[in-house]
Amino acid sequence: MTTYGLLVFEAAEELDFVGPWEVFTASAMLRDEDDKAFLVAEQPGPVRCAKGLRVVPDHTLDDHPKLDVLLVPGGRGARETQPHNPSVTGWIAKTAQQADWVTSVCTGSILLHAAGPAKGRRVATHWASEDDLEARGDVTVVRDARYVVDGNLITSQGVSAGIDMALWLVGRIHGRDHARAVRRYIQYEPAPPYMADVPE
Amino acid sequence: MTTYGLLVFEAAEELDFVGPWEVFTASAMLRDEDDKAFLVAEQPGPVRCAKGLRVVPDHTLDDHPKLDVLLVPGGRGARETQPHNPSVTGWIAKTAQQADWVTSVCTGSILLHAAGPAKGRRVATHWASEDDLEARGDVTVVRDARYVVDGNLITSQGVSAGIDMALWLVGRIHGRDHARAVRRYIQYEPAPPYMADVPE
Repeated sequence: MTTYGLLVFEAAEELDFVGPWEVFTASAMLRDEDDKAFLVAEQPGPVRCAKGLRVVPDHTLDDHPKLDVLLVPGGRGARETQPHNPSVTGWIAKTAQQADWVTSVCTGSILLHAAGPAKGRRVATHWASEDDLEARGDVTVVRDARYVVDGNLITSQGVSAGIDMALWLVGRIHGRDHARAVRRYIQYEPAPPYMADVPE
Repeated sequence: MTTYGLLVFEAAEELDFVGPWEVFTASAMLRDEDDKAFLVAEQPGPVRCAKGLRVVPDHTLDDHPKLDVLLVPGGRGARETQPHNPSVTGWIAKTAQQADWVTSVCTGSILLHAAGPAKGRRVATHWASEDDLEARGDVTVVRDARYVVDGNLITSQGVSAGIDMALWLVGRIHGRDHARAVRRYIQYEPAPPYMADVPE
Protein backbone atom coordinates (compact mmCIF):
# COMPACT_ATOMS: atom_id res chain seq x y z
CA MET A 1 0.00 0.00 0.00
CA THR A 2 1.39 3.38 -1.03
CA THR A 3 -0.09 6.70 0.13
CA TYR A 4 0.44 9.92 -1.79
CA GLY A 5 -0.13 13.28 -0.10
CA LEU A 6 -0.41 16.28 -2.42
CA LEU A 7 -0.14 19.66 -0.69
CA VAL A 8 -2.43 22.39 -2.03
CA PHE A 9 -2.62 26.07 -1.10
CA GLU A 10 -4.01 29.34 -2.45
CA ALA A 11 -2.54 29.98 -5.94
CA ALA A 12 -1.04 26.51 -6.41
CA GLU A 13 -0.71 25.84 -10.15
CA GLU A 14 -3.45 23.45 -11.28
CA LEU A 15 -1.63 21.02 -13.58
CA ASP A 16 1.34 20.84 -11.19
CA PHE A 17 -0.65 18.60 -8.85
CA VAL A 18 -3.46 17.23 -11.04
CA GLY A 19 -0.96 15.73 -13.53
CA PRO A 20 0.74 13.64 -10.80
CA TRP A 21 -2.67 13.03 -9.15
CA GLU A 22 -3.84 11.34 -12.36
CA VAL A 23 -0.68 9.22 -12.52
CA PHE A 24 -0.80 8.20 -8.83
CA THR A 25 -4.52 7.39 -8.86
CA ALA A 26 -4.32 5.49 -12.16
CA SER A 27 -1.46 3.53 -10.59
CA ALA A 28 -3.64 2.84 -7.53
CA MET A 29 -6.53 1.66 -9.71
CA LEU A 30 -4.35 -0.68 -11.76
CA ARG A 31 -2.55 -2.12 -8.73
CA ASP A 32 -5.73 -2.61 -6.71
CA GLU A 33 -3.81 -2.81 -3.43
CA ASP A 34 -5.47 0.01 -1.53
CA ASP A 35 -3.03 2.76 -2.54
CA LYS A 36 -4.46 6.19 -1.72
CA ALA A 37 -3.90 9.73 -2.95
CA PHE A 38 -5.26 12.75 -1.10
CA LEU A 39 -5.03 16.53 -1.07
CA VAL A 40 -3.74 18.17 2.10
CA ALA A 41 -4.29 21.86 2.90
CA GLU A 42 -3.76 24.17 5.85
CA GLN A 43 -7.50 24.69 6.31
CA PRO A 44 -10.57 22.65 5.39
CA GLY A 45 -12.80 24.08 2.66
CA PRO A 46 -12.18 24.91 -1.00
CA VAL A 47 -8.77 26.14 -2.12
CA ARG A 48 -8.56 28.55 -5.07
CA CYS A 49 -5.69 27.60 -7.37
CA ALA A 50 -3.47 29.93 -9.43
CA LYS A 51 -5.78 30.01 -12.44
CA GLY A 52 -9.05 29.98 -10.50
CA LEU A 53 -9.88 26.27 -10.21
CA ARG A 54 -11.33 25.46 -6.79
CA VAL A 55 -10.55 22.09 -5.22
CA VAL A 56 -11.67 20.60 -1.92
CA PRO A 57 -8.85 19.17 0.23
CA ASP A 58 -9.28 15.74 1.81
CA HIS A 59 -7.26 16.44 4.95
CA THR A 60 -5.66 19.27 6.89
CA LEU A 61 -2.01 19.63 7.89
CA ASP A 62 -2.65 18.47 11.45
CA ASP A 63 -4.88 15.50 10.63
CA HIS A 64 -3.97 13.21 7.75
CA PRO A 65 -2.85 9.60 7.27
CA LYS A 66 0.87 8.87 7.22
CA LEU A 67 2.15 9.48 3.72
CA ASP A 68 4.80 7.65 1.75
CA VAL A 69 5.10 10.26 -0.99
CA LEU A 70 4.86 14.02 -0.44
CA LEU A 71 4.21 16.24 -3.47
CA VAL A 72 4.59 20.03 -3.37
CA PRO A 73 3.20 21.91 -6.40
CA GLY A 74 4.41 25.28 -7.66
CA GLY A 75 2.56 28.40 -8.71
CA ARG A 76 2.42 31.92 -7.36
CA GLY A 77 1.58 30.65 -3.87
CA ALA A 78 4.71 28.49 -3.78
CA ARG A 79 6.94 31.40 -4.78
CA GLU A 80 5.43 34.33 -2.92
CA THR A 81 3.24 33.36 0.01
CA GLN A 82 3.91 29.91 1.42
CA PRO A 83 7.71 30.30 1.88
CA HIS A 84 6.78 32.83 4.60
CA ASN A 85 4.06 30.68 6.18
CA PRO A 86 5.63 28.80 9.12
CA SER A 87 2.62 26.45 9.46
CA VAL A 88 3.24 25.15 5.97
CA THR A 89 7.06 25.19 5.97
CA GLY A 90 7.09 23.51 9.39
CA TRP A 91 4.69 20.83 8.18
CA ILE A 92 6.77 20.21 5.06
CA ALA A 93 9.99 19.89 7.10
CA LYS A 94 8.41 17.42 9.53
CA THR A 95 6.52 15.43 6.90
CA ALA A 96 9.54 15.17 4.59
CA GLN A 97 11.50 13.45 7.36
CA GLN A 98 8.85 10.75 7.64
CA ALA A 99 8.13 10.23 3.92
CA ASP A 100 9.89 7.77 1.64
CA TRP A 101 9.89 10.26 -1.23
CA VAL A 102 9.72 14.06 -1.29
CA THR A 103 8.72 15.53 -4.65
CA SER A 104 7.95 18.89 -6.22
CA VAL A 105 6.74 20.27 -9.52
CA CYS A 106 7.65 23.65 -11.01
CA THR A 107 8.35 26.30 -8.35
CA GLY A 108 7.38 23.84 -5.64
CA SER A 109 11.16 23.49 -5.29
CA ILE A 110 11.30 27.10 -4.04
CA LEU A 111 8.91 26.15 -1.25
CA LEU A 112 10.88 22.95 -0.54
CA HIS A 113 14.00 25.09 -0.32
CA ALA A 114 12.40 27.55 2.11
CA ALA A 115 11.16 24.63 4.23
CA GLY A 116 14.54 22.89 4.27
CA PRO A 117 14.34 19.62 2.31
CA ALA A 118 15.84 21.12 -0.87
CA LYS A 119 18.71 22.93 0.89
CA GLY A 120 22.11 21.67 -0.21
CA ARG A 121 20.54 19.48 -2.90
CA ARG A 122 20.44 19.25 -6.70
CA VAL A 123 17.04 20.46 -7.91
CA ALA A 124 14.95 21.41 -10.97
CA THR A 125 12.37 24.19 -11.23
CA HIS A 126 10.40 26.15 -13.86
CA TRP A 127 12.78 27.73 -16.40
CA ALA A 128 11.64 31.24 -15.45
CA SER A 129 12.55 30.70 -11.77
CA GLU A 130 15.97 29.06 -12.11
CA ASP A 131 17.88 32.30 -11.43
CA ASP A 132 15.59 33.17 -8.51
CA LEU A 133 16.09 29.77 -6.87
CA GLU A 134 19.84 29.80 -7.43
CA ALA A 135 20.10 33.27 -5.87
CA ARG A 136 18.57 31.91 -2.65
CA GLY A 137 21.81 29.99 -2.12
CA ASP A 138 22.75 26.57 -0.71
CA VAL A 139 21.21 24.74 -3.67
CA THR A 140 22.38 23.45 -7.07
CA VAL A 141 19.91 24.24 -9.85
CA VAL A 142 20.08 21.70 -12.67
CA ARG A 143 18.97 23.54 -15.79
CA ASP A 144 18.85 20.83 -18.41
CA ALA A 145 16.93 17.92 -16.90
CA ARG A 146 13.15 17.37 -16.92
CA TYR A 147 13.33 16.13 -13.32
CA VAL A 148 16.19 15.60 -10.90
CA VAL A 149 16.51 12.71 -8.45
CA ASP A 150 18.84 13.45 -5.51
CA GLY A 151 18.48 10.73 -2.90
CA ASN A 152 14.80 10.61 -2.00
CA LEU A 153 14.18 14.15 -3.30
CA ILE A 154 12.68 14.45 -6.80
CA THR A 155 12.11 17.93 -8.23
CA SER A 156 10.71 18.66 -11.69
CA GLN A 157 10.67 21.48 -14.21
CA GLY A 158 7.57 23.55 -14.96
CA VAL A 159 3.90 22.56 -14.77
CA SER A 160 3.59 19.63 -17.21
CA ALA A 161 6.87 18.03 -16.04
CA GLY A 162 5.10 16.55 -13.02
CA ILE A 163 3.49 13.93 -15.26
CA ASP A 164 6.87 12.59 -16.39
CA MET A 165 8.25 12.72 -12.85
CA ALA A 166 5.25 10.90 -11.36
CA LEU A 167 5.47 8.16 -13.99
CA TRP A 168 9.15 7.72 -13.19
CA LEU A 169 8.33 7.47 -9.49
CA VAL A 170 5.58 4.84 -9.79
CA GLY A 171 8.04 2.87 -11.91
CA ARG A 172 10.74 3.25 -9.26
CA ILE A 173 8.37 2.08 -6.51
CA HIS A 174 6.27 -0.51 -8.34
CA GLY A 175 8.34 -1.47 -11.38
CA ARG A 176 8.79 -0.36 -14.96
CA ASP A 177 6.12 -2.64 -16.38
CA HIS A 178 3.61 -1.09 -14.02
CA ALA A 179 4.68 2.44 -15.01
CA ARG A 180 4.23 1.50 -18.65
CA ALA A 181 0.71 0.23 -17.90
CA VAL A 182 -0.10 3.56 -16.21
CA ARG A 183 1.29 5.46 -19.19
CA ARG A 184 -0.89 3.36 -21.47
CA TYR A 185 -3.98 3.95 -19.30
CA ILE A 186 -3.56 7.74 -19.47
CA GLN A 187 -2.64 7.30 -23.14
CA TYR A 188 0.45 9.43 -22.66
CA GLU A 189 1.84 9.54 -26.18
CA PRO A 190 2.49 13.27 -26.34
CA ALA A 191 2.11 15.08 -29.66
CA PRO A 192 2.64 18.81 -29.01
CA PRO A 193 1.41 20.83 -31.99
CA TYR A 194 3.29 23.55 -33.90
CA MET A 195 6.70 22.00 -33.24
CA ALA A 196 7.60 22.81 -36.83
CA ASP A 197 6.93 25.99 -38.75
CA VAL A 198 5.20 24.82 -41.90
CA PRO A 199 2.70 26.46 -44.31
CA GLU A 200 -0.87 26.33 -42.92
CA MET B 1 -12.27 37.74 -25.64
CA THR B 2 -12.64 33.96 -25.68
CA THR B 3 -14.69 32.02 -23.12
CA TYR B 4 -14.07 28.35 -22.40
CA GLY B 5 -16.74 26.27 -20.67
CA LEU B 6 -15.59 22.92 -19.28
CA LEU B 7 -18.39 20.54 -18.32
CA VAL B 8 -17.82 18.48 -15.17
CA PHE B 9 -19.93 15.70 -13.68
CA GLU B 10 -19.65 12.87 -11.15
CA ALA B 11 -16.80 10.54 -12.24
CA ALA B 12 -15.33 12.85 -14.89
CA GLU B 13 -11.65 11.95 -15.37
CA GLU B 14 -9.46 14.54 -13.67
CA LEU B 15 -6.69 15.18 -16.21
CA ASP B 16 -9.21 15.18 -19.08
CA PHE B 17 -10.38 18.65 -18.09
CA VAL B 18 -7.53 20.01 -15.94
CA GLY B 19 -4.99 19.54 -18.77
CA PRO B 20 -7.01 21.75 -21.16
CA TRP B 21 -7.93 24.06 -18.23
CA GLU B 22 -4.22 24.75 -17.70
CA VAL B 23 -3.72 25.44 -21.42
CA PHE B 24 -6.78 27.70 -21.74
CA THR B 25 -6.03 29.68 -18.57
CA ALA B 26 -2.33 30.04 -19.40
CA SER B 27 -3.45 31.33 -22.81
CA ALA B 28 -5.80 33.79 -21.08
CA MET B 29 -3.03 35.02 -18.78
CA LEU B 30 -0.56 35.54 -21.62
CA ARG B 31 -3.10 37.27 -23.89
CA ASP B 32 -4.43 39.53 -21.13
CA GLU B 33 -7.65 40.23 -23.06
CA ASP B 34 -10.20 39.06 -20.51
CA ASP B 35 -10.50 35.47 -21.77
CA LYS B 36 -12.27 33.30 -19.21
CA ALA B 37 -12.42 29.60 -18.41
CA PHE B 38 -15.03 28.13 -16.07
CA LEU B 39 -16.39 24.80 -14.90
CA VAL B 40 -20.07 24.09 -15.56
CA ALA B 41 -22.01 21.38 -13.72
CA GLU B 42 -25.62 20.27 -13.42
CA GLN B 43 -25.79 21.28 -9.76
CA PRO B 44 -23.87 23.77 -7.63
CA GLY B 45 -21.55 22.32 -4.98
CA PRO B 46 -18.51 20.05 -5.19
CA VAL B 47 -18.30 17.39 -7.90
CA ARG B 48 -16.40 14.16 -7.16
CA CYS B 49 -14.27 13.15 -10.14
CA ALA B 50 -13.42 9.62 -11.33
CA LYS B 51 -10.37 9.26 -9.09
CA GLY B 52 -11.78 11.11 -6.09
CA LEU B 53 -10.67 14.72 -6.67
CA ARG B 54 -13.41 17.17 -5.68
CA VAL B 55 -13.80 20.38 -7.66
CA VAL B 56 -16.23 23.26 -7.22
CA PRO B 57 -18.06 24.30 -10.41
CA ASP B 58 -18.29 28.00 -11.28
CA HIS B 59 -21.69 27.84 -12.97
CA THR B 60 -24.68 25.55 -13.45
CA LEU B 61 -26.16 24.34 -16.74
CA ASP B 62 -28.99 26.86 -16.64
CA ASP B 63 -26.95 29.90 -15.63
CA HIS B 64 -23.58 30.52 -17.25
CA PRO B 65 -22.01 33.08 -19.61
CA LYS B 66 -22.15 32.40 -23.34
CA LEU B 67 -19.25 30.15 -24.25
CA ASP B 68 -17.10 30.10 -27.36
CA VAL B 69 -15.48 26.74 -26.63
CA LEU B 70 -17.27 23.77 -25.03
CA LEU B 71 -15.14 20.97 -23.57
CA VAL B 72 -16.58 17.60 -22.54
CA PRO B 73 -14.26 15.35 -20.51
CA GLY B 74 -14.39 11.57 -20.38
CA GLY B 75 -14.27 9.13 -17.51
CA ARG B 76 -16.73 6.62 -16.11
CA GLY B 77 -19.44 9.28 -15.86
CA ALA B 78 -19.14 10.10 -19.56
CA ARG B 79 -19.48 6.44 -20.56
CA GLU B 80 -22.04 5.12 -18.12
CA THR B 81 -24.19 7.78 -16.49
CA GLN B 82 -24.40 11.04 -18.40
CA PRO B 83 -25.39 9.56 -21.79
CA HIS B 84 -28.68 8.69 -20.05
CA ASN B 85 -29.10 12.06 -18.33
CA PRO B 86 -31.37 14.22 -20.53
CA SER B 87 -30.53 17.42 -18.59
CA VAL B 88 -26.90 17.05 -19.58
CA THR B 89 -27.36 15.70 -23.12
CA GLY B 90 -29.96 18.38 -23.83
CA TRP B 91 -27.64 21.09 -22.55
CA ILE B 92 -24.76 19.76 -24.65
CA ALA B 93 -26.92 19.67 -27.80
CA LYS B 94 -28.14 23.23 -27.28
CA THR B 95 -24.79 24.66 -26.20
CA ALA B 96 -22.90 23.00 -29.06
CA GLN B 97 -25.12 24.81 -31.56
CA GLN B 98 -24.13 28.17 -30.09
CA ALA B 99 -20.41 27.51 -29.55
CA ASP B 100 -17.64 28.19 -32.05
CA TRP B 101 -15.83 24.99 -31.08
CA VAL B 102 -17.06 21.74 -29.53
CA THR B 103 -14.33 19.59 -28.01
CA SER B 104 -13.94 16.39 -26.03
CA VAL B 105 -11.20 14.41 -24.36
CA CYS B 106 -11.09 10.63 -23.93
CA THR B 107 -14.57 9.07 -23.67
CA GLY B 108 -16.12 12.52 -23.71
CA SER B 109 -16.77 11.64 -27.36
CA ILE B 110 -19.19 8.93 -26.20
CA LEU B 111 -21.18 11.59 -24.37
CA LEU B 112 -20.97 13.93 -27.38
CA HIS B 113 -22.28 11.08 -29.51
CA ALA B 114 -25.21 10.40 -27.17
CA ALA B 115 -26.03 14.12 -27.12
CA GLY B 116 -25.85 14.46 -30.89
CA PRO B 117 -22.88 16.66 -31.88
CA ALA B 118 -20.61 13.67 -32.67
CA LYS B 119 -23.22 11.76 -34.71
CA GLY B 120 -22.15 11.28 -38.31
CA ARG B 121 -18.71 12.73 -37.60
CA ARG B 122 -15.09 11.58 -37.53
CA VAL B 123 -13.97 11.27 -33.90
CA ALA B 124 -11.22 10.06 -31.56
CA THR B 125 -11.62 8.45 -28.13
CA HIS B 126 -9.63 6.47 -25.53
CA TRP B 127 -8.09 3.37 -27.13
CA ALA B 128 -10.05 1.07 -24.81
CA SER B 129 -13.39 2.56 -25.92
CA GLU B 130 -12.91 2.67 -29.68
CA ASP B 131 -14.89 -0.53 -30.30
CA ASP B 132 -17.64 0.57 -27.90
CA LEU B 133 -18.04 3.93 -29.63
CA GLU B 134 -17.98 2.40 -33.11
CA ALA B 135 -20.66 -0.12 -32.11
CA ARG B 136 -23.00 2.76 -31.24
CA GLY B 137 -23.23 3.50 -34.97
CA ASP B 138 -23.45 6.63 -37.12
CA VAL B 139 -19.88 7.66 -36.29
CA THR B 140 -16.41 7.14 -37.81
CA VAL B 141 -13.81 6.31 -35.16
CA VAL B 142 -10.32 7.41 -36.20
CA ARG B 143 -7.91 5.07 -34.43
CA ASP B 144 -4.54 6.49 -35.27
CA ALA B 145 -4.71 10.23 -34.56
CA ARG B 146 -4.05 12.01 -31.25
CA TYR B 147 -7.00 14.32 -31.94
CA VAL B 148 -9.41 14.67 -34.83
CA VAL B 149 -10.72 17.96 -36.22
CA ASP B 150 -13.99 17.58 -38.18
CA GLY B 151 -15.44 21.01 -38.89
CA ASN B 152 -15.81 22.71 -35.51
CA LEU B 153 -15.74 19.39 -33.62
CA ILE B 154 -12.42 18.37 -32.05
CA THR B 155 -12.23 15.04 -30.23
CA SER B 156 -9.09 13.64 -28.60
CA GLN B 157 -7.72 10.30 -27.49
CA GLY B 158 -7.36 9.30 -23.83
CA VAL B 159 -6.77 11.50 -20.77
CA SER B 160 -3.45 13.25 -21.51
CA ALA B 161 -4.37 13.92 -25.17
CA GLY B 162 -6.46 16.92 -24.13
CA ILE B 163 -3.28 18.92 -23.52
CA ASP B 164 -2.16 18.49 -27.14
CA MET B 165 -5.67 19.20 -28.45
CA ALA B 166 -6.07 22.35 -26.34
CA LEU B 167 -2.70 23.69 -27.51
CA TRP B 168 -3.73 23.09 -31.11
CA LEU B 169 -6.99 24.93 -30.50
CA VAL B 170 -5.49 28.05 -28.89
CA GLY B 171 -3.11 28.14 -31.87
CA ARG B 172 -6.03 27.84 -34.29
CA ILE B 173 -7.90 30.67 -32.55
CA HIS B 174 -5.07 32.97 -31.52
CA GLY B 175 -2.14 31.97 -33.74
CA ARG B 176 0.75 29.56 -33.68
CA ASP B 177 3.18 31.93 -32.01
CA HIS B 178 0.74 32.32 -29.15
CA ALA B 179 0.32 28.53 -28.84
CA ARG B 180 4.09 28.18 -28.69
CA ALA B 181 4.24 30.76 -25.90
CA VAL B 182 1.61 28.78 -23.96
CA ARG B 183 3.57 25.57 -24.50
CA ARG B 184 6.67 27.31 -23.20
CA TYR B 185 4.81 28.66 -20.15
CA ILE B 186 3.61 25.18 -19.15
CA GLN B 187 7.08 23.90 -20.11
CA TYR B 188 5.53 21.16 -22.22
CA GLU B 189 8.61 19.31 -23.40
CA PRO B 190 7.38 15.79 -22.64
CA ALA B 191 9.89 13.15 -21.57
CA PRO B 192 7.94 9.99 -20.72
CA PRO B 193 10.16 7.58 -18.78
CA TYR B 194 10.77 3.88 -19.50
CA MET B 195 10.29 4.27 -23.25
CA ALA B 196 13.24 1.95 -23.73
CA ASP B 197 14.01 -1.27 -21.92
CA VAL B 198 17.56 -0.82 -20.67
CA PRO B 199 19.51 -2.27 -17.71
CA GLU B 200 18.66 -0.42 -14.45
